[in-house]
Amino acid sequence: MKASRFFIGTLKEAPTDAEIVSHQLMMRAGMIRRVAGGIYSYLPIGLRSIRKVETIVREEMNRAGALELLMPAVQPAELWQESARWEQYGPELLRIKDRHDRDFVIGPTHEEVVTDIARREIKSYRQLPVNFYQIQTKFRDEIRPRFGVMRGREFIMKDAYSFDRDQAGLAESYKKMFDAYVRVFTRIGLEFRAVAADNGSIGGSGSHEFHVIADTGEDAIAYCPTSDYAANVEAADALPLNATRAAPKEEMKKTATPGKAKCEAVAQWLNIPLERTIKSIILATENESAEPTIWLLMLRGDHSLNDIKANKQPGLAGYRFATEAEIIDTFGTPPGYLGPLNTKKPIKVIADRTVANMSDFVVGSNEVDYHTTGVNWGRDLPEPVVADIRNVLAGDPSPDGKGVLEICRGIEVGHVFQLGTKYSDAMGASFLDENGKPAPMQMGCYGIGITRILGAAIEQNFDGKGIIWPESIAPFEVVLCPMGYDRSEAVREQADKLYAALQAAGIDVVLDDRGERPGVMFADWELIGVPHRLVIGDRGLKEGKLEYQARRDAEATLLPVDDAANVVIEKVRAALARGVTQ
Amino acid sequence: MKASRFFIGTLKEAPTDAEIVSHQLMMRAGMIRRVAGGIYSYLPIGLRSIRKVETIVREEMNRAGALELLMPAVQPAELWQESARWEQYGPELLRIKDRHDRDFVIGPTHEEVVTDIARREIKSYRQLPVNFYQIQTKFRDEIRPRFGVMRGREFIMKDAYSFDRDQAGLAESYKKMFDAYVRVFTRIGLEFRAVAADNGSIGGSGSHEFHVIADTGEDAIAYCPTSDYAANVEAADALPLNATRAAPKEEMKKTATPGKAKCEAVAQWLNIPLERTIKSIILATENESAEPTIWLLMLRGDHSLNDIKANKQPGLAGYRFATEAEIIDTFGTPPGYLGPLNTKKPIKVIADRTVANMSDFVVGSNEVDYHTTGVNWGRDLPEPVVADIRNVLAGDPSPDGKGVLEICRGIEVGHVFQLGTKYSDAMGASFLDENGKPAPMQMGCYGIGITRILGAAIEQNFDGKGIIWPESIAPFEVVLCPMGYDRSEAVREQADKLYAALQAAGIDVVLDDRGERPGVMFADWELIGVPHRLVIGDRGLKEGKLEYQARRDAEATLLPVDDAANVVIEKVRAALARGVTQ
Repeated sequence: MKASRFFIGTLKEAPTDAEIVSHQLMMRAGMIRRVAGGIYSYLPIGLRSIRKVETIVREEMNRAGALELLMPAVQPAELWQESARWEQYGPELLRIKDRHDRDFVIGPTHEEVVTDIARREIKSYRQLPVNFYQIQTKFRDEIRPRFGVMRGREFIMKDAYSFDRDQAGLAESYKKMFDAYVRVFTRIGLEFRAVAADNGSIGGSGSHEFHVIADTGEDAIAYCPTSDYAANVEAADALPLNATRAAPKEEMKKTATPGKAKCEAVAQWLNIPLERTIKSIILATENESAEPTIWLLMLRGDHSLNDIKANKQPGLAGYRFATEAEIIDTFGTPPGYLGPLNTKKPIKVIADRTVANMSDFVVGSNEVDYHTTGVNWGRDLPEPVVADIRNVLAGDPSPDGKGVLEICRGIEVGHVFQLGTKYSDAMGASFLDENGKPAPMQMGCYGIGITRILGAAIEQNFDGKGIIWPESIAPFEVVLCPMGYDRSEAVREQADKLYAALQAAGIDVVLDDRGERPGVMFADWELIGVPHRLVIGDRGLKEGKLEYQARRDAEATLLPVDDAANVVIEKVRAALARGVTQ
Repeated sequence: MKASRFFIGTLKEAPTDAEIVSHQLMMRAGMIRRVAGGIYSYLPIGLRSIRKVETIVREEMNRAGALELLMPAVQPAELWQESARWEQYGPELLRIKDRHDRDFVIGPTHEEVVTDIARREIKSYRQLPVNFYQIQTKFRDEIRPRFGVMRGREFIMKDAYSFDRDQAGLAESYKKMFDAYVRVFTRIGLEFRAVAADNGSIGGSGSHEFHVIADTGEDAIAYCPTSDYAANVEAADALPLNATRAAPKEEMKKTATPGKAKCEAVAQWLNIPLERTIKSIILATENESAEPTIWLLMLRGDHSLNDIKANKQPGLAGYRFATEAEIIDTFGTPPGYLGPLNTKKPIKVIADRTVANMSDFVVGSNEVDYHTTGVNWGRDLPEPVVADIRNVLAGDPSPDGKGVLEICRGIEVGHVFQLGTKYSDAMGASFLDENGKPAPMQMGCYGIGITRILGAAIEQNFDGKGIIWPESIAPFEVVLCPMGYDRSEAVREQADKLYAALQAAGIDVVLDDRGERPGVMFADWELIGVPHRLVIGDRGLKEGKLEYQARRDAEATLLPVDDAANVVIEKVRAALARGVTQ
């Protein structure tokens, strides 16, 4: 491509509504333009990257045996009524009426349509398994669209749906998609993690999220650098940090801790490690015809409550924090010095796994300005109900026993999910098995956010000058910057020669023949993020040299004119070969 | 592709709502499935053809220098209000509201969005010309969607929009798109015509339609086989069929024509050629504060009125047919024997060009059962207002003077249009010219119905067995049908070898390894329309032969086993090379 025939819409400033760096840089690089809230046009430079993402995804879906089809954006309400999502789905589902006043939706996803296809087309076990995918425009009516392509309303997704005879088949289809996703993100060249959406074990989980690692990510991820283990912090198993409980050494003793309501302050005042203190969290659950039940959840002083895990405890689903009145009524004292000892009314106690193995610990005395030290299970308190109710921390043991957890932040760009028979049952998608008996199809669904990948890739790869694309999805792989293309015949000749050589080698190269000043050229292509740059100038040519600089390099290096094309071709090819399997 | 891993959804019967052959065959071949009225899913076999059409269109758009971008399906009402189409566009424009009750449309076309991009991005004449295109899903809320992909509601279009400094630039951009369209349809391998939407001359016209020729087409096209001339019959110039008017030879005479109200009957009764009779058509136009004006339009007996041309005559715009009461009031007689002679009230007369050059003609006498013969202009009737008000007929002279017209039927699959400054003026899309003065951009728009091309290609290419695809857009180029793939090692070995050889040559080949009976295999692939078939059987192999049959061939021919792959490769390559330019 010659830049003079292309459209370059770089901007000095990002609009004020662009809060995060990927949104700012996609605007400034001329990749996207806002049409309405959460709705964008993709300018030519942005679409080039989208198409490259799509091609990699398509190749890996095909390699995994999935079959591409295309379902409509506008879907009849009847299908969503059958699945009951017409009522269940929130206002993100844009419900519309056609000219005949019939109800439709603009599809945010396609489980209903694809299940309708499957139930009509698939009659026999001989037609299974099958996996249909599409790359298609979706609409989700976000209440507050923002962050550019990261949380838009209209966006491009790859969505795949597998149909199997039984759960074993589903597990196999799921594994194939999981492996294909690993190849996709490896080929794109992003640092990513497959994260179990529930318990973190790849084999046993019905759902995984694929996250691009970036400091600005919305999700916190616990992972083990020495094993495969990764899970959303919300879902990661927290093991006890003390394998067994030591025998009591201290006597229980009430101690003045004036004004020290927080564990950190208590530990400092008593000159003991924070790990000896207990944090008491008071919750309430409603009962139909009686007083609310009051719960005391005990966590080690340096730990924090995991809301999702707490909600899974028997009796605790739908809990709320107790009111101050309830606390005074139950503990005889306002919040600040609470504990399980000597409560005024009965409570239910749950101890976190780590707390359950502690001894000689410190709790609030249910009296202002007092804590009790040397408390022990069995001796001073009844044995508690034990559960995993805390968030994991960096340094915790990995639940797979293969190392120590670290925490990072991620941006979800893919999701694989075992649906089972949820939609097949609701919509009657069954087949005749080997014995001629009808059975519901086992379904899986598998999504990749095509446009979101651009944003995530930028959040992971940028600097003060702009975007730093991996070669795989860069709008151009190489830029040629001739200094004086319109003035110097030697420069023009050499630039044209390089351009021809790179094109002949299949390199996606742009020649900046706009006649702009070097500063403008360099700033544009650094902002756009082209990974490789060759500068052709009269001075260098006299010595038979060109300036080469990778986008990540701090300095340019000199290359002999005759080697330049081959050096760049090899670099691009090596990058594109990453993760490609035959 | 191996058929066992593909999804083949052929049907014995088409659904009853499929009225035309392309709709029936696309359903039966398993290319499309109905989701709602005018809304379809494209199954894998249908999507393969769509993608091939898209690729050809994309290559030719890029070759013509157009730049691909992607605009959203959901567009804010504000843009449509600026262009005034929010009010002007009929109910085909699906107007919707988002969760915040803001107005949007699902775009049937993108002039507003692209003009909004242009006015923001283009500041200077140096950025012009530019041509943006996209391949995108559109929605048009047809009142009665039918004919499958031919008149659907959700469909895929390529739409391009050019922006130029002036009209000369627009004409050049238009010519580039016109030429690109010729290459697209030539490469696809369809018989097509570029048809002037108004006066039929390529140079002077602001709009052309591209029609695929098919007997079932909705549009009648007049074209000259010995020149470039082609125009919609509605728009084709009808020249006088008699260059000059002969001198009168007969006396005017009232003649009894009992019960002969039609020209054909009169000519037969009087034993004269139909070309001597005149057809009188009585129209009325409303006047604000007076009686309606009554018009008599005179056509030769074998000619028919062209509604569009009549509407363009001064004073006739918005005409209606006169009522029987008006006719009796004006002519003194009911319809059947009407003419321009001796009317009871004054009328306005327009003679078609051919009528104006007739002499000694026959008209109704304004008396039941009587006609008047030997009527002549100037002598019996005042010289008339002359205009082109009829439809052309096969055999008419071509308006370019280069031959004789023929009539065929066509399906519109493309349209190129010079918009001028319609949208730039309405939406303020201007640029600074060489003198620093603002000027409106000159726009053109250029559409191709991607999904519609499939239907049109089938209407042009089918037989009793199914579809006959051109290689360029066939879901597969070659099918291998082994007889007993699961039973005969020799057959399987040879089939696998051919499959590998064809794949290595880049041929899009499908190997039918399903183990179906030959009848089922042949019927499926003939219905689907794969253009080349090789049959591998034990009997033939013993003699070193394979059966080859092109989809259009009546009979199979025998090929030596070792030649088969190369013969087929050459045939496919030759077909795909058609119309390809470097």
